Amino acid sequence: MTQTQQGERLKQLKQIIKRNEKSAIEEYLKFLRFASVSTDSAYKKDLLECLAWLDDYVKRLGFHTEIWETSGHPVLFASRMDGGPNAPTLLIYNHYDVQPVDPIEGWDSPPFEPVIKEGEVFARGACDNKGQCFYVLQALKTLIEANGKLPINIKLCIEGEEEIGSAGLSILVKTKQKELKADYLAIVDLGLRSADMPAVTLGTRGIVTFTVNVEAANGDLHSGSHGGLARNPLQVLSKLLSTLHDEKGRVTVPHFYDDVASLKEADKELISFAFDANEYRQCFGASPHGGESDYAPLERVWTRPTLEINGITGGYGGVGFKTVLPAKAIAKISCRLVPDQNPEKIGQLIANHLEKIAPKDIRLEVVVHPGKGAAMRTTPNSRVVQAFAKAYQEVFEVPTEFIYEGGSIPIVPELAKASGAEVVLMGLGLSDDKIHAPNEHFSLKRIERGTLVMARAIELLQ
Amino acid sequence: MTQTQQGERLKQLKQIIKRNEKSAIEEYLKFLRFASVSTDSAYKKDLLECLAWLDDYVKRLGFHTEIWETSGHPVLFASRMDGGPNAPTLLIYNHYDVQPVDPIEGWDSPPFEPVIKEGEVFARGACDNKGQCFYVLQALKTLIEANGKLPINIKLCIEGEEEIGSAGLSILVKTKQKELKADYLAIVDLGLRSADMPAVTLGTRGIVTFTVNVEAANGDLHSGSHGGLARNPLQVLSKLLSTLHDEKGRVTVPHFYDDVASLKEADKELISFAFDANEYRQCFGASPHGGESDYAPLERVWTRPTLEINGITGGYGGVGFKTVLPAKAIAKISCRLVPDQNPEKIGQLIANHLEKIAPKDIRLEVVVHPGKGAAMRTTPNSRVVQAFAKAYQEVFEVPTEFIYEGGSIPIVPELAKASGAEVVLMGLGLSDDKIHAPNEHFSLKRIERGTLVMARAIELLQ
Repeated sequence: MTQTQQGERLKQLKQIIKRNEKSAIEEYLKFLRFASVSTDSAYKKDLLECLAWLDDYVKRLGFHTEIWETSGHPVLFASRMDGGPNAPTLLIYNHYDVQPVDPIEGWDSPPFEPVIKEGEVFARGACDNKGQCFYVLQALKTLIEANGKLPINIKLCIEGEEEIGSAGLSILVKTKQKELKADYLAIVDLGLRSADMPAVTLGTRGIVTFTVNVEAANGDLHSGSHGGLARNPLQVLSKLLSTLHDEKGRVTVPHFYDDVASLKEADKELISFAFDANEYRQCFGASPHGGESDYAPLERVWTRPTLEINGITGGYGGVGFKTVLPAKAIAKISCRLVPDQNPEKIGQLIANHLEKIAPKDIRLEVVVHPGKGAAMRTTPNSRVVQAFAKAYQEVFEVPTEFIYEGGSIPIVPELAKASGAEVVLMGLGLSDDKIHAPNEHFSLKRIERGTLVMARAIELLQ
Repeated sequence: MTQTQQGERLKQLKQIIKRNEKSAIEEYLKFLRFASVSTDSAYKKDLLECLAWLDDYVKRLGFHTEIWETSGHPVLFASRMDGGPNAPTLLIYNHYDVQPVDPIEGWDSPPFEPVIKEGEVFARGACDNKGQCFYVLQALKTLIEANGKLPINIKLCIEGEEEIGSAGLSILVKTKQKELKADYLAIVDLGLRSADMPAVTLGTRGIVTFTVNVEAANGDLHSGSHGGLARNPLQVLSKLLSTLHDEKGRVTVPHFYDDVASLKEADKELISFAFDANEYRQCFGASPHGGESDYAPLERVWTRPTLEINGITGGYGGVGFKTVLPAKAIAKISCRLVPDQNPEKIGQLIANHLEKIAPKDIRLEVVVHPGKGAAMRTTPNSRVVQAFAKAYQEVFEVPTEFIYEGGSIPIVPELAKASGAEVVLMGLGLSDDKIHAPNEHFSLKRIERGTLVMARAIELLQ
C-alpha cells in the first residue's frame, strides 16, 4: 500500500465507525454497567450476566463461541476463521472482570453507572479492560462491514479472572492448546505514555501476592491493663515490614535479586527512560522517590522487581479512639517480578524469611495467594510487534515508541506458550486513567483510535 | 464494732440484697440495654436515654439530681446529705458511657442484649462501668432500706465521656468545685487481681492519644504502574512506627522518660509484683514479652509509661487482593503515662519527633486528641483507702492487697483537685472481664460483693 492508499483505507474505516458511533456508545455503556468484580464472590451473578452479554455480542459478529468453565469465573472463547487454513491466525486476549470499587467514597459518580463528561467515560472498567476489549470488538465489526469478512483468522480469549491472577485460565491453557493455537497473540491490556504518543509495550512485570497474619492474643486486649505487657501485633507487624527494605530501597530478603535478568543492550537502545518528576508530582500528588534509589524512575518501574505493602488492617480504625491492643494484625503485600524470577520461588523466599525473622512468641502465618504470574518480554523485531507499531503510526501520524509496563498480566507467558504464538502487548491506556482507583475513565476518542489501530494491524498481518 | 457485730451487720445487709435480688437483676439488664457508646455521635440518643433512666433511678433513691450539660455528653450529679454538716461527705465517681462494640463479629450474643450464663452477665458495659456503677446504687439502696437513711453525706458524679477522655467533665470541674466538694472521693472503675482476692488500687496511669496520617498521593495508585516509583505510605508508616521502640522495648522518643517518677520505696514494699506468665498465656493466648525488657511484667504495667499502636488502616483490607498503593495510611497510637509525666508535653514531644523523622516528600499530620489525662497515685495510709481495705476484707474474708492499675481514668486527678478529697481507687473488675473487647462480662456474685463492700465502706467512714 502506498501512503495515499493507507490514507484512503483509514478514511473508509473511519466512515464506518462514524456510522455506528451512537449504537457503539450505547453498547459500551451497557458493557460497563455489569458489576463484574472478580475478587468478591458476591458479584458472581454480575460476572455471569456480563459474560452472557459478551457471548451474545460476539455471536452476532459471526463468531463461533464457547464458554469454558473454570474453578472460578468462566472464559469466553470465540473464533471466526475467515482466512482459511493458509492465512495466519491472530489470538486476541482481553478480560471482562474488573477491580473492586473501594474506596467507594472516592467516586464522583457510582462506579457501575457510567457517565460521559467532555468525551471521557467514567466507570469501573472504563479502561481496564472493558474499554480496551470494546474497541477490539468494534475493529472486528468494522472490518466485517468494510469487506464482508475478516482478512485473517481471528480467535478471542476473554477471561473473567485477570484481576485476581487468572487461576482458572492458567489451568485451562494446558488442555486447550489446540483451540488456542495461533501465529500471533495480541494482549490488549496495555497503554501509552501520553495520549498522542503511540506505543507498543515490550514487557510486563510478573506478580506474586501474600497475606501476612500476625496473631498475638486470643482476643483484643485493653491497652491499659496489657500495654507494655503483651506483645502488640501491630508493633510486631510494623517492625517486620520495616525490615524488608534497606535505606536504598532494596528488598532485603536474601536471594530476592538472584535471578533478575537485565534488559538486552540492543533493546535498551530502543527505549527512552526520560521521566518528568514535576509532571509526575503534579499528576499524582506523589513523590517519585519510592523504590531503589540506585535506578532511574522508569528503570525501576519497567525493569526492577518490587516488594510493596498493599494494605494493613488491625485494631481500631473507626471514628474517635479505642484503647485496644488488637488480637491480630494483617498485611497484604505483593512483589512485582522481572524475567527470570520465578513467582513460586520468590513467594517461598519471602514466606520463609518472614517466618525466620518474626518473634517466636507470636503466631505468624504467611499465605501465598494463587494467581501468581511470571514477567514477559517480547522482541521488538517480531512481525506482530512491527505490524502493530506500523498500525499505531498510521493512526496517530507519529512514530511509535517502545515502552515497558510495570503492571502484570499473569496469564501472558502461559498463554504465549499454549498458543505457540508470537506476542504483542498493546493498548491505549494512560497512566492517569485511574484504573484500580476511584473515577476510572477512558475517552471515546481512544475507543475510535483503538478500533482503527486494531483493524489496521489485522489487515497488516494478512 | 466487734468481729461478731461485723458479721451480724453483713448478714443483715445480705438479707436486704437477697430480698431485692430479682428486681435488681432486671434493673441491671435494663441499664445494659442502652447502647451508650460515647465515641460515635450516632449513639447520642442512646446516651441521653441511658442518662434519663439513671436520673430517674437515683431520684427514686431520694437523691437531689442535676444534669450538667457539657460540650459532649452530659454528667449526672446527685446528692443526698443525710449526714448533716458535721458528717463527712463521700463523692462517688462512675460513668454511664461504654466502649464501641467492634469487632462485632467477635460477640457470641448482641452486645446490647445482655444474656446471663452461669451467673455471668454478657454485654458491653457489663463490667466497665455499668456493673460497677450499679452495685454503688445497690449499696445506697440497701443502706437506706437498712436504716431509713445514709450514715454520711453522699454525692454521685456519673459522667458520659470516660471512654473518650472526659473532655466535658474536665472543663466542668473548674466551675463546680462547690458542688463537688467532699472529704473522700471513691473512683469506682477499678479491679482485682483475682476473683477471691480483695484489692485497693493505689494508682492509675495517665493517657494521651494521637492519630498519625501519612498521605503520599492524591489518590490510590496502581501498584504495577507505580510500584517501585511512588512513595508507599504504608511503607513510610511502618518504618516510622518501627523506630519508636528500641530492641529493649524502650520508647526512643527523646525526653520521653525525663519526668517519670519512681514508686516510693515504702509503697513498693506493700506491693507484690508476682506474676504467673503461664497463667497469663493461658488466659489471654498472649506472650507477656511486650514492653521494656528491663522491667518485670507488672512493674511495666503498673509503673512504666508505654507507647502502643492501637490501630493501622490503609490500602486494601477486604476479601481477596487488590494491587494498590494507597493514597493514605493512618495509625492510631496512645501513650500510657506515669507520675509526673505531663500529657500535653508528651503529646507534643511525640508529634514533634514524628514530624522530624518522617521523609519530607510525604504529607504527615499528627493529631493529638483531646481527652488527655495525667496519672494518679494515692497514699495507702489515708483514711478512705483504709476504710475500703477493711470493707473488702470483711466481705471477702481475706486480707486486702494493694495493687496498681495500668489503665487510665483521665478525670481522676482533676476531680480530686476540684473536690479537695482524699482519693480511693476501687472496683471489682477482673482482667478477663473482656472490657473494651467482644463478650464483655461481669458476675452477679460480684454485683453482690460490690454492694456489700461499698455499703460497709460507707459505714466505716461514718
